[in-house]
Amino acid sequence: MANVEVEVFSIEALREFCARVFMHFRVPKDQATQAADVLAAADLRGIDSHGVARMSSYVGVLSEGLINPKPEIKIVRSTPSTATIDGDNGLGLVVGPRANQMAIEMAQKAGSGWISVRNTNHYGIAGYYVLKAAECDMIGWAMTNSSALVTPLWGMERMLGTNPIAIAFPGKKEPPIVIDMATCTAAYGKIEIALRKGQKIPAGWAIDNQGRVTTEPADVLAGGALLPLGSDRERGGHKGYALAMMVDLLSGALSGANWGPFAPPFALRQTIPTRSVDKGIGHFFGAMRVDGFIDSDSFKSQVDEYIRVFRATKPAPGTSGPLIPGDPEREAEGIRRKSGVPLVLPVVNDLREISKKTGIPFD
Amino acid sequence: MANVEVEVFSIEALREFCARVFMHFRVPKDQATQAADVLAAADLRGIDSHGVARMSSYVGVLSEGLINPKPEIKIVRSTPSTATIDGDNGLGLVVGPRANQMAIEMAQKAGSGWISVRNTNHYGIAGYYVLKAAECDMIGWAMTNSSALVTPLWGMERMLGTNPIAIAFPGKKEPPIVIDMATCTAAYGKIEIALRKGQKIPAGWAIDNQGRVTTEPADVLAGGALLPLGSDRERGGHKGYALAMMVDLLSGALSGANWGPFAPPFALRQTIPTRSVDKGIGHFFGAMRVDGFIDSDSFKSQVDEYIRVFRATKPAPGTSGPLIPGDPEREAEGIRRKSGVPLVLPVVNDLREISKKTGIPFD
Repeated sequence: MANVEVEVFSIEALREFCARVFMHFRVPKDQATQAADVLAAADLRGIDSHGVARMSSYVGVLSEGLINPKPEIKIVRSTPSTATIDGDNGLGLVVGPRANQMAIEMAQKAGSGWISVRNTNHYGIAGYYVLKAAECDMIGWAMTNSSALVTPLWGMERMLGTNPIAIAFPGKKEPPIVIDMATCTAAYGKIEIALRKGQKIPAGWAIDNQGRVTTEPADVLAGGALLPLGSDRERGGHKGYALAMMVDLLSGALSGANWGPFAPPFALRQTIPTRSVDKGIGHFFGAMRVDGFIDSDSFKSQVDEYIRVFRATKPAPGTSGPLIPGDPEREAEGIRRKSGVPLVLPVVNDLREISKKTGIPFD
Repeated sequence: MANVEVEVFSIEALREFCARVFMHFRVPKDQATQAADVLAAADLRGIDSHGVARMSSYVGVLSEGLINPKPEIKIVRSTPSTATIDGDNGLGLVVGPRANQMAIEMAQKAGSGWISVRNTNHYGIAGYYVLKAAECDMIGWAMTNSSALVTPLWGMERMLGTNPIAIAFPGKKEPPIVIDMATCTAAYGKIEIALRKGQKIPAGWAIDNQGRVTTEPADVLAGGALLPLGSDRERGGHKGYALAMMVDLLSGALSGANWGPFAPPFALRQTIPTRSVDKGIGHFFGAMRVDGFIDSDSFKSQVDEYIRVFRATKPAPGTSGPLIPGDPEREAEGIRRKSGVPLVLPVVNDLREISKKTGIPFD
């Protein structure tokens, strides 16, 4: 990793720095630590776009007073297995873990717990949450909506976020199966990387602002949009579109948050929707006790066997065979815990800038 | 519709015929009526592959004693919001509706209800179930696994079923949003249609038995496999694969049914897996009371507004703009209720054959 383009940092150093920065902006210590932990999970798991790379956006909105550093998180409605939480415009990195924990506690009593969250902000990687449930022998679910970047199939404008779905299943000797996927074909970060490298993007990822399929990453930034998973009608683009809508309805409409094109942006200097239909963005969490359905131990043994059977699938020509969802992230985590997290220079510079502004040392 | 290739039947006639055929094979009257209703829903909604076109397969397995016409459906485990049901190897068309109804009743008490089902058989269209929940002001979920047809990304063999996900959200003045999608790129029925018409299939739908992408439908039947939604790595084929696995784990492993390549086939003369890991195939149902999260009336009004906003999306060039999930099926239903259901001649001949065998009139 030691080349000119990256610098390597220990995860502890990054976590500590982020926690102190959050505290600088009046986030209480336990919440700052929690928020930093979510970011660290992204950096460990190799999802670089969602980790410390976002600190400068968080700092921007916190310093402008656009996010409430001391939210009073409230339950606005509940039944034994469902609830809606108002995040009081707090950090999603704080509101999300709290709501997820409530889903887990609810499941302990009622078998399952389902929490929709409104008036919240971006919550990091969805995979973070579902792993917490899996650690408790539960099946964890997490979704969130986000500001519009994706066009519906047959549309030509940004109407939906990249709206991820995550779910995790605990194994016994094998690690958990962790699904964590945006419902668009390719992540926005990949467009940015192609742009930086001066490369084309594959047809099927995006359209330009005239609704035409494009292979120029710059077209996406110039008012184009990402395509939903499936890309076009022939390859099932209506399905990715439907999944993005499902996430949006569960996270946004069900909680009383904004939805679709009205979801507010994450960072400063992004376009603000002309209309607000409700409060903030929304999340949706679920936790189901495995032993609410079947003996936990036999389920986890089946998951182990499941993993082994799928690993043994005959590989397609030119590949080393199917992965199990969660494999790449876990491998990244193993490496980065030992060898540190490589950060690209623009991110390092952002963090140094934050250090200068706040007086919190970063090196 | 009146051309040489189809004959048109009223939905009442088809429903009545199917119910009587099920009764002929010792299915109790109320269950036979229920089973026929699920099939009729498929024919009404234009999902021809899942309606009366399957009667001859049902008759095959019933007459061979491979399905239990009088199952004792049992709850094997439960909490206030979760349960596992053993379908006693009954018709999925009978076991499914029962389990779905239990999820709805559970939600009435606990806010949500989640039912996994083992030892069951194919249950028709997933959309049928979620519409029932939507009628009760609930968000309905339905999934099922099925015999293997789909390869994991980077695999070259059939390891997963077409494993559908369905979910419905009730509207107020607008009809419900109904998502009902297989997790592969294209339905198997489309391969069969292309074969019959002597047409090629698009690259991205399937591989041949050497793991190569193919455009020949015959290659799929000759030991090839369907590709998961997303088709290849570049377009997110790992996501469709992960979704199919999610459905399989929730329906199969969680209930104690067979999963992956071990899910038994639907009809006679299909390959029987060499190994059984548990009982039958599996389903997964969920129902969440909308008012367990938010006022039902305001949610349904938001769904109405959601539909209107998405219908007003700027259309991509050459299209009439995005549809709302559930639109095509509802339109088909409107037409077919009035004008009848067109059946292709091979299906009509199958039904006449059943009529001859059972003595139940069909014309």
